[in-house]
Amino acid sequence: MLILMSLNTPRKDIDAVKNKIVSLNCTPHEIPGKSKLAIGITGPTDQLKKEDFIMLTSVEEVVRVTKKYKLVSRMMQSDDTIINFDGFKFGGESLQIIAGPCSVESKDQIFEIAGSLKESGIKFMRAGAFKPRSSPYAFQGLKEKGLEYLQEVKKEFGMVIVTELLNFVSLPAILETADIIQIGARNMQNYALLEEVGKHNKPILLKRGMAATVEELLLSAEYIFSSGNKNVILCERGIRTFETSTRNTLDLNAVPVIKKHSHLPIIVDPSHGIGIWDKVPAMSLAAVAAGADGLILEVHNRPDEALSDGFQSITPQALKELLEKIKQMAPIVNKKLVLNEDK
Amino acid sequence: MLILMSLNTPRKDIDAVKNKIVSLNCTPHEIPGKSKLAIGITGPTDQLKKEDFIMLTSVEEVVRVTKKYKLVSRMMQSDDTIINFDGFKFGGESLQIIAGPCSVESKDQIFEIAGSLKESGIKFMRAGAFKPRSSPYAFQGLKEKGLEYLQEVKKEFGMVIVTELLNFVSLPAILETADIIQIGARNMQNYALLEEVGKHNKPILLKRGMAATVEELLLSAEYIFSSGNKNVILCERGIRTFETSTRNTLDLNAVPVIKKHSHLPIIVDPSHGIGIWDKVPAMSLAAVAAGADGLILEVHNRPDEALSDGFQSITPQALKELLEKIKQMAPIVNKKLVLNEDK
Amino acid sequence: MLILMSLNTPRKDIDAVKNKIVSLNCTPHEIPGKSKLAIGITGPTDQLKKEDFIMLTSVEEVVRVTKKYKLVSRMMQSDDTIINFDGFKFGGESLQIIAGPCSVESKDQIFEIAGSLKESGIKFMRAGAFKPRSSPYAFQGLKEKGLEYLQEVKKEFGMVIVTELLNFVSLPAILETADIIQIGARNMQNYALLEEVGKHNKPILLKRGMAATVEELLLSAEYIFSSGNKNVILCERGIRTFETSTRNTLDLNAVPVIKKHSHLPIIVDPSHGIGIWDKVPAMSLAAVAAGADGLILEVHNRPDEALSDGFQSITPQALKELLEKIKQMAPIVNKKLVLNEDK
Amino acid sequence: MLILMSLNTPRKDIDAVKNKIVSLNCTPHEIPGKSKLAIGITGPTDQLKKEDFIMLTSVEEVVRVTKKYKLVSRMMQSDDTIINFDGFKFGGESLQIIAGPCSVESKDQIFEIAGSLKESGIKFMRAGAFKPRSSPYAFQGLKEKGLEYLQEVKKEFGMVIVTELLNFVSLPAILETADIIQIGARNMQNYALLEEVGKHNKPILLKRGMAATVEELLLSAEYIFSSGNKNVILCERGIRTFETSTRNTLDLNAVPVIKKHSHLPIIVDPSHGIGIWDKVPAMSLAAVAAGADGLILEVHNRPDEALSDGFQSITPQALKELLEKIKQMAPIVNKKLVLNEDK
Repeated sequence: MLILMSLNTPRKDIDAVKNKIVSLNCTPHEIPGKSKLAIGITGPTDQLKKEDFIMLTSVEEVVRVTKKYKLVSRMMQSDDTIINFDGFKFGGESLQIIAGPCSVESKDQIFEIAGSLKESGIKFMRAGAFKPRSSPYAFQGLKEKGLEYLQEVKKEFGMVIVTELLNFVSLPAILETADIIQIGARNMQNYALLEEVGKHNKPILLKRGMAATVEELLLSAEYIFSSGNKNVILCERGIRTFETSTRNTLDLNAVPVIKKHSHLPIIVDPSHGIGIWDKVPAMSLAAVAAGADGLILEVHNRPDEALSDGFQSITPQALKELLEKIKQMAPIVNKKLVLNEDK
Repeated sequence: MLILMSLNTPRKDIDAVKNKIVSLNCTPHEIPGKSKLAIGITGPTDQLKKEDFIMLTSVEEVVRVTKKYKLVSRMMQSDDTIINFDGFKFGGESLQIIAGPCSVESKDQIFEIAGSLKESGIKFMRAGAFKPRSSPYAFQGLKEKGLEYLQEVKKEFGMVIVTELLNFVSLPAILETADIIQIGARNMQNYALLEEVGKHNKPILLKRGMAATVEELLLSAEYIFSSGNKNVILCERGIRTFETSTRNTLDLNAVPVIKKHSHLPIIVDPSHGIGIWDKVPAMSLAAVAAGADGLILEVHNRPDEALSDGFQSITPQALKELLEKIKQMAPIVNKKLVLNEDK
Repeated sequence: MLILMSLNTPRKDIDAVKNKIVSLNCTPHEIPGKSKLAIGITGPTDQLKKEDFIMLTSVEEVVRVTKKYKLVSRMMQSDDTIINFDGFKFGGESLQIIAGPCSVESKDQIFEIAGSLKESGIKFMRAGAFKPRSSPYAFQGLKEKGLEYLQEVKKEFGMVIVTELLNFVSLPAILETADIIQIGARNMQNYALLEEVGKHNKPILLKRGMAATVEELLLSAEYIFSSGNKNVILCERGIRTFETSTRNTLDLNAVPVIKKHSHLPIIVDPSHGIGIWDKVPAMSLAAVAAGADGLILEVHNRPDEALSDGFQSITPQALKELLEKIKQMAPIVNKKLVLNEDK
Repeated sequence: MLILMSLNTPRKDIDAVKNKIVSLNCTPHEIPGKSKLAIGITGPTDQLKKEDFIMLTSVEEVVRVTKKYKLVSRMMQSDDTIINFDGFKFGGESLQIIAGPCSVESKDQIFEIAGSLKESGIKFMRAGAFKPRSSPYAFQGLKEKGLEYLQEVKKEFGMVIVTELLNFVSLPAILETADIIQIGARNMQNYALLEEVGKHNKPILLKRGMAATVEELLLSAEYIFSSGNKNVILCERGIRTFETSTRNTLDLNAVPVIKKHSHLPIIVDPSHGIGIWDKVPAMSLAAVAAGADGLILEVHNRPDEALSDGFQSITPQALKELLEKIKQMAPIVNKKLVLNEDK
């Protein structure tokens, strides 16, 4: 950490800063410059906060040198984290596809889609039983009934189930059904919930908030990690910008940035990201090319009848064609698409 | 709701849309235009969703005419909602000030600040016992101990207490201490929590999310309303933009927009909004001039020693000077600053 | 400027950085820290660019300590710049109002509005002869004819004319008519145009670009200054964000930020800023309360017939009521509304 | 166009709207709905503006049905526009690479880079002679001298030259040297300049503004088209968002959106888009996968010595490796990378 002060700072203000540093068990180092006086700090600087200094008289700026996240950073662990489901892996050279409808709507619907997905070799199925909706009057999911259907789908088709956790109350039920617990964009900074799922060992799919920076996403993952759960998969799903021709702005830049700074797998959700079904395949391929460790795709057998988000869902047939292209593209970026042979 | 189709749409596609409308118990009306065919809909259109139509063949756009929120809208209730604490009101012609430190740090700190505030005639005190922090390593609040101190402050100084609820688990404790429950920006779309506080009658201070539109803020208020709690105070606290010279971009435009579309009181948090202490007074005055029903201000007796957000806190002395100016300004916008005479 | 390197950087990389510094006629200072090695630089650091160092091996970050703008900064000149038109001033304790229609539409229109404005004591009239429009099919202004009418208005009513310059070609004509040359948001980073108007002595009204930071606005003012013209008035007119309920997000935070860092007058355009006529008065008062040096307002005698931007224009009657409130509010923020007594 | 009014609108207000429509030579159609009255309009609606109606009494909303751009839309021309340079094409199935340094720095530099590019089969060379820089103190390019070197490069290596036009004054010189004239992000809404280049026949590379929507980019292209020049190549180069870990947010979503709505070629600039050299290859591949018609890449033989933007430049060696991957990836998205065999 560096404290910047103006060159003509009175000696007593400089001394106040240095005394504050000493009082925090660190050591100050005066570094005079041409236009500013910098005071470097050594010692247990982890404990220091910008706020410790910024209000002191004559202090102009406080510069933090190190990243705020630790456990999830590449500095801490240089090898990729691999999250393994019976040989189906997230991270490393694997490329995984999670697919399914936005919501569980009925047993028939979920079974029919699961059947189509299995035929395409998809191992991971997404479907929401509890849905966060900006309007209280919109369809909120089948709730417990939805989880029940997901249990049956798992038994019948051997799918690995990804479903969203909205709150503490439904955690026991979600823990029973989900193989991967999704924390949605709106809950990315619900720290209490992050700490709670951090106490279990079940893999967490953590989606980036609509206005969250990459650093904040990693800090939210750090909450889960520091609570004990090291099985975290990050997910880029579009951020909010001024552009109105797409639902969100899928930020693929986040993929290479996260791959560089963190060892966690990062997957991409082009369905929410661009939000228009006929443009989902293009963005899916772009995500793979950018180096993503996987995709999470909304697939619906009758998108025009979907109770939610039909407009961004692709059909099982479109998925099949997309998988064909992904299979070809993956090796170019040193990835391998892993599909379920056991159809 | 209006469905727009291209002029040369085949008859069967038009009929499919009209049949869908009929199947939803509504009535279609064909309206040919120069470049588009519009189909108007009458009947119980509240039940319709854009998604019902957008995927049908040949449909180009679906335009919703009415607002998605109802109970919180001016259409539903033209008079201002007034939330009353023994004559200290939010809404109508009243202008209220909530002030206090970001966090409860110690009994001494909270008592000293409460004393200063009381002297200035402040009736509403804010202070966090549970703090949401983007890093798990930052100070998270004194938790239960903090609530205890707030209880004592209430007894000693007769303050009305505003404190943040982070999750279900601490709801009972918060209900016991808080007179106004704050739902922070990060929880604005934590719908389960909104519904939960909607079951109680305690006033809620609902802060706008960092990337939430005004419509989404009103829809979140609608969640609380439709769960039964009609005591909601909205709060603008800055949105996230590309600008980096301020912590957030305090969006005062939201004030006249909300005053027009909703009957709920709307207050402003300039401390988080601009995030730089010496610019808080200017933005406070601007908020009053824009028509806000109140302010929530971070005040700390020793900002440079604050455990969180000291950089955006003003001193009790600065508050006193600001109140003087607000008192003069309020009548110009038909407001009256109500301070506690009982000092 | 500070160069940050990791602690275990090999000596040869450190030496490479130090040699680079020396080659640029500056002096390096090694400052070892706990987790990083910083190299401070003294000497003629103005000439240094981040890019000089960021690519060198082992360099992790380059921190610039001083602001990039100089001539327009408060450090360079602590007193407010005052721009004076026969006693009507921008800057210091004056509060000025510029008003008028978006575009000159006809001689009758411009004369009628000028008459109303004069009656209200308005000295500065805005009206565009050349209009920048996002569509080539929208009304582009009366061009030379419009300037002619503005000349006549000036003669008849003694108004000070503010009109927009779009390009080099029309500069001579604009110079002849305008008393203040407006550079619009879309041209804020048209550096060639900035340098060109910088060669003349005529006051410039420089509007902030839709996605320009405060620093970039000040750097654009620096272009005009460093070309020789010191008569610059800055204008906040709304930035682009995700919010859709207002045309733009008027960023009043920019006012106290700019007042702190620059000596230039800063005025506010609430008409473009919020873009909805019935909310313009609220944002006008907010701008005054935030400390703005003036307002630029769209006023039209028949807003519903305006050829452009009628939706954000207020009537002369609404202006009169607004001026009354501003007159009362100004002294609270140490300002004085200066109107033309010579009606 | 549709005018929405409330159901209980008095007859005289409805008639006023209908009379206005008739006075504009169009025909009104009343369409009563459940909660609103809509008035549809037929006839020459192209001439109508939202502003014609929005201010009329009782009008609540005006909905425009058709897109504002015409000539550049797919509706007007369903086949891709192809821009051909002796068999090297932009548009259709071709994938083109433009590469080169940010600025011409010296004859040696530009010759050395051109040599490397030619070796890799690159036909299109970018290099700025006039540079737009946010600070007046930053390197502004070699100007005329730079164009001279570009002329020599063209003669020596047979390169097609892409260079930026900043203003009217340098247009003759640019016309003489450039084969493709670049209009930069800051000038995307400099309409006078767009109309000026629209009068010539030389291909234009039009970059998206930092806060421009896709629709605005297409409208700016429409300016060039409607002035007579149909040789326009669009370029996505990153937009401005709240994210700070990348220089800009490269918005690849724009690629499939533009491919759907316009027939113009769209290329991508990952160098400015993400702004960090080691992440440029990942975003380049992502752009190709998203369906882009080409890339424009900053390549510098000694990025650490570049006078501008070295931090986002890749080396000729990195380019070579990238081209190898692009060559493999292109056919998957039905594209063909066209390189110059004549090395």
